[in-house]
Amino acid sequence: MLFGSNKLPDNITSKNIVFQDGKTTRDDRVALQGHLGCVIWITGLSGSGKSTIATLLEEKLIRNGSLAYVLDGDNVRHGLNRDLGFSAEDRGENIRRIGEISALFAQAGLIVICSFISPYASGRQGAREASGDSKFIEVFLDTPLSECEKRDPKGLYKKVRAGEISNFTGVDAPYEQPVSAELALKTHQMTPVECSERIFSYLRDQGIFVKDKYL
Amino acid sequence: MLFGSNKLPDNITSKNIVFQDGKTTRDDRVALQGHLGCVIWITGLSGSGKSTIATLLEEKLIRNGSLAYVLDGDNVRHGLNRDLGFSAEDRGENIRRIGEISALFAQAGLIVICSFISPYASGRQGAREASGDSKFIEVFLDTPLSECEKRDPKGLYKKVRAGEISNFTGVDAPYEQPVSAELALKTHQMTPVECSERIFSYLRDQGIFVKDKYL
Repeated sequence: MLFGSNKLPDNITSKNIVFQDGKTTRDDRVALQGHLGCVIWITGLSGSGKSTIATLLEEKLIRNGSLAYVLDGDNVRHGLNRDLGFSAEDRGENIRRIGEISALFAQAGLIVICSFISPYASGRQGAREASGDSKFIEVFLDTPLSECEKRDPKGLYKKVRAGEISNFTGVDAPYEQPVSAELALKTHQMTPVECSERIFSYLRDQGIFVKDKYL
Repeated sequence: MLFGSNKLPDNITSKNIVFQDGKTTRDDRVALQGHLGCVIWITGLSGSGKSTIATLLEEKLIRNGSLAYVLDGDNVRHGLNRDLGFSAEDRGENIRRIGEISALFAQAGLIVICSFISPYASGRQGAREASGDSKFIEVFLDTPLSECEKRDPKGLYKKVRAGEISNFTGVDAPYEQPVSAELALKTHQMTPVECSERIFSYLRDQGIFVKDKYL
């Protein structure tokens, strides 16, 4: 197959890219991006710091030359999953779909950072299984309920205690703590920046970044 | 915010990247990748060449230094949309979800190539609207039914004519031809490589590639 005279970008050399007949391989993507695709799944109570840490990590990765993207309630609940409510069944389907699309993102070569309470072990396990050949890194934000309630960034715990919200994870709905997460971070003893640095170091140690110059 | 001593990749300079407080912007992604994220939506009858052209285009883009990814029945129907069948309602929901995730891919900075029959104008319009600020490029493979039936790469038309399959787009189910697609390609008068080159040229003309060295 001929591709005309298009020049390769300076940062990749033809030896890095083996073009099989019409089919882009994972190696092609790694050669292009300088990193593996993977799924980082951040789970924890409301107020544990998921969004803050996800956003910091995304920024650090992009600054590092790695294409990262945060999936969270903001960009999923209003679009893909806008047909879902908050029944047990719909919450399960919400997490199932997120697991599947995060697997697609990882396959495409991105470092996808999922930031969802995801209270059930079965839901997180489903996401792990969906990720297939891509690395799946579960990050448990291990923060006491009392601390989350003290922070209460969205004022939700206050509403729960006032009886305005029910079925709230950690209060009157279960949160099944991960028992074998790749990382558990005590966000009441570390700053958000420290937490994001810790996840970044873990990625580096796991060989997610394959180009030395990016380290 | 401090990020330690991480060196920027050689191909981006700090002046290209403005890090707003903890929030990655589209410009950051463009500076990193050298191209805009966008949605290429390939529509056409079974046998019109969607998959072949999508795969060729993906390969050409990656060779060009642009991160592209094909969404098609293979990676969507078996995962995200495995709960959906082929009723009119489920087909509609299938396309709705694909529209939403392609919008997320484009937002993340990828060139996502969607390869789906997508027979209804309303479904394609929904995908276009979901893409929001990202460019949406509808590519209509304008191939006569007789030609598609002659090719019959999956042997499906034969089964339709034998009465083994019904509700088949173009035969006994409607295909609403796009009337304002960005590109219409007569795949019976052009080779698949010519078609993929044509889409690539269109992307270039639309300013999707922002780094001169990639052109």
